[in-house]
Amino acid sequence: MKTVIDYIENNHNRYLEELKEFLRIPSVSTDPTKDQDVRKAAEFVKGQLTAAGMAKVEIFSTEGYPIVYAERVMEEAKPTVLIYGHYDVQPVDPIELWETAPFEPAIRKGELYARGAADDKGQIFIHFKSAEAFMNTRQELPVNIKFLIEGEEEIGSPHLDQFIEEHQDLLRSDVGMISDTTMFARGVPSLCYGLRGLVFFQLDVQGANTDLHSGSFGGTVVNPGFELSKILAAMKDGNGRVMIPHFYDNVREVTERERQEYARLPFDEANFKQAFGLKQLSGEDGYTPLERLWVRPTFEINGLESGFTGEGAKTVLPAKAMAKVSMRLVPDQDPDTIADLFENYVRLLAPPSVHLKVTRMHGGKPWVASLDHPALVAAAEALKKAFGKEPVFQREGGSIPVVATFAERLNIPTVLMGIGLPDENAHAPNEKLDLDNFYGGVRSSAYFLDELSRADL
Amino acid sequence: MKTVIDYIENNHNRYLEELKEFLRIPSVSTDPTKDQDVRKAAEFVKGQLTAAGMAKVEIFSTEGYPIVYAERVMEEAKPTVLIYGHYDVQPVDPIELWETAPFEPAIRKGELYARGAADDKGQIFIHFKSAEAFMNTRQELPVNIKFLIEGEEEIGSPHLDQFIEEHQDLLRSDVGMISDTTMFARGVPSLCYGLRGLVFFQLDVQGANTDLHSGSFGGTVVNPGFELSKILAAMKDGNGRVMIPHFYDNVREVTERERQEYARLPFDEANFKQAFGLKQLSGEDGYTPLERLWVRPTFEINGLESGFTGEGAKTVLPAKAMAKVSMRLVPDQDPDTIADLFENYVRLLAPPSVHLKVTRMHGGKPWVASLDHPALVAAAEALKKAFGKEPVFQREGGSIPVVATFAERLNIPTVLMGIGLPDENAHAPNEKLDLDNFYGGVRSSAYFLDELSRADL
Repeated sequence: MKTVIDYIENNHNRYLEELKEFLRIPSVSTDPTKDQDVRKAAEFVKGQLTAAGMAKVEIFSTEGYPIVYAERVMEEAKPTVLIYGHYDVQPVDPIELWETAPFEPAIRKGELYARGAADDKGQIFIHFKSAEAFMNTRQELPVNIKFLIEGEEEIGSPHLDQFIEEHQDLLRSDVGMISDTTMFARGVPSLCYGLRGLVFFQLDVQGANTDLHSGSFGGTVVNPGFELSKILAAMKDGNGRVMIPHFYDNVREVTERERQEYARLPFDEANFKQAFGLKQLSGEDGYTPLERLWVRPTFEINGLESGFTGEGAKTVLPAKAMAKVSMRLVPDQDPDTIADLFENYVRLLAPPSVHLKVTRMHGGKPWVASLDHPALVAAAEALKKAFGKEPVFQREGGSIPVVATFAERLNIPTVLMGIGLPDENAHAPNEKLDLDNFYGGVRSSAYFLDELSRADL
Repeated sequence: MKTVIDYIENNHNRYLEELKEFLRIPSVSTDPTKDQDVRKAAEFVKGQLTAAGMAKVEIFSTEGYPIVYAERVMEEAKPTVLIYGHYDVQPVDPIELWETAPFEPAIRKGELYARGAADDKGQIFIHFKSAEAFMNTRQELPVNIKFLIEGEEEIGSPHLDQFIEEHQDLLRSDVGMISDTTMFARGVPSLCYGLRGLVFFQLDVQGANTDLHSGSFGGTVVNPGFELSKILAAMKDGNGRVMIPHFYDNVREVTERERQEYARLPFDEANFKQAFGLKQLSGEDGYTPLERLWVRPTFEINGLESGFTGEGAKTVLPAKAMAKVSMRLVPDQDPDTIADLFENYVRLLAPPSVHLKVTRMHGGKPWVASLDHPALVAAAEALKKAFGKEPVFQREGGSIPVVATFAERLNIPTVLMGIGLPDENAHAPNEKLDLDNFYGGVRSSAYFLDELSRADL
């Protein structure tokens, strides 16, 4: 590997210049006026993948932005890795908070500032460059590689699942690889091996058919805001435990090894409280803060609305009250089962005086990989070699839908090897990427491909 | 009284034409572009009161719209009635729902359609005309009259209390008279003798100092929407009874006579439910629907807001949640005492994990008159003679602040003799006034002045 790694170290400046070129394309997928720029970014990715020696590079049209697919499959017997990423970026508003223009990359104190630097252009670049490094030194890759780079991640990937569904043969692989997450902290190379699932609901409670005067009608007409509050208040006990019957039936308990892994992570409760202005941390007794975030399910209110919410007072007895609520799920909770349990419980709680509408919005399955999976072991070894440190194993409390899709449609596990940092403003002004992590990321990707070639998948 | 009543009956057409002229003035006090029209309405009132034979008619400036004051005090020994009303009107939006233009009075099926017809131009007109009838027949009034007609009722009477406070001598009277309410139902002449009081609060609950991702933070960071729901849910039990400690300590129980009065009112529960799309009526066991509205206190949620309330789903863990809440009070609950009890209870319920802000918005005392008060007996006799029917005694669940001010500042009871109807769209498009009730109102006012002259106040 020495020649490959030396090649990478000798090409930092070129990598940086090419990444800057990529970052100058304002590929904001939410902004219709940027349509041509988003498509230009797809062409740029195609160019990079061609330069990286992919045997086949193709741009697939969708009803939205194109999907760039590339592959180099030289020996069917070798492991195949499917690398996913996205070339679209978040909007830039509020633009006035940027210290330098979002699409004019600038370097300050070893960090590259630009929209997309961390999410996800800089992170997919590490894989483009590691493949190129192998091809320009050994003239071959250690494993088979397939790239799947989409342009609609920031708008919810509306066409990705269908593409994967329709191209299962093309995408057949042994393992997925995604670099679109963050390390646990600066200087802590990390592998994410679990994600929580989700069910999301809207509840609409209606009393009268029109807003009424709270003086003239209060006392005889049901108050939907109050009835909704009663329903919501019944969802968790004082200890943060969800009270939906049978909610915990299929929750897999955290293992002793996982508890040990999390315990050695540098989670600073005092800093956390200060950063977010919290008087104290919340959640279930018997679990650490990280366990509550990663291996325990939750019930949250995401939105509430009823009646008059402007300045001052208005004595209205509202006709309607609305709540958006969601539950984060952990293995082995099934979103459909949990959704049924929730809906049954809500219908049980709602009084006969109100009209109740329960709308299921969307959901996703929880996911967890085995810490012993050879691909995860290979990734851990790669990070150790690239950063000179044992990586930590973490989970993420949110969801990354494509990981569930890979598991369900392609039947493969995914390695989440993010080289971003938690403070890199992925969806905020002054997005940045640490350049040491960027170059370390290219090395990590190269070591991973090498390790994977010897893994017993 | 025959000559007075005959005079009234012979002048219907003139009354109607003059009222139409009044209604053509678009005196919308909320609309700054109507400033000159509001002032024009004050001048019109001055002209009417002069024509009605008032000995003194004066327009008092305020920092807002003027107050028209008039009086005819001939014998100090005679009872003095203070007649309150307002010459400003509600806005007309949504204008497209009006069948005829709001400021071009039109008659359809015995009803006069115009903004202000019922609220309150048509109703104050009955007193202008009864005074005029006495003066044009007997050349004298049976009692002393003072008129207090303001132009800011629809914007919350911001300058009225101060005016009353500063003119207590000028306004000294034995009884107040207001026609700005509705009859219980068509064909049911009514006297309102009680109003509920009010305390209004805003509750602001804050968790983190910024909205967070519900996946990445849910389980460790407090959800202010949930904590607010728990606080609100603790305010009433399943039977609609307010659970604030000591809330009911000073509630005066409804008397047997009142129960009998209400029981004979034509309250049609099926119609009520259908009109407002209700599946069932709500409220405390042991009280009829009307008792719940009039003689029992309430707790209501007037507004709720937290997090994401747009279309679709957003997995936000909100930083803040807000509720507007109010309590309707009955004699002898004191607003300040109840406000203290509520605030103490909220602070007791709020968990230590949240930042809680409790803001008292405004309040008003409950009010009730004795059914035996001579002025109320006189008004009942007047309505009976004018409409040929025994009037009913009702209360109102809302509040009319000026009634409390009269009680507190001038130490007088008030007769609420409304001749509007519940379906006359006082604050909605197609406001109207039943013309039979209008003419009956003029007669009622005349009979009232006559009855009052013999009352033992």
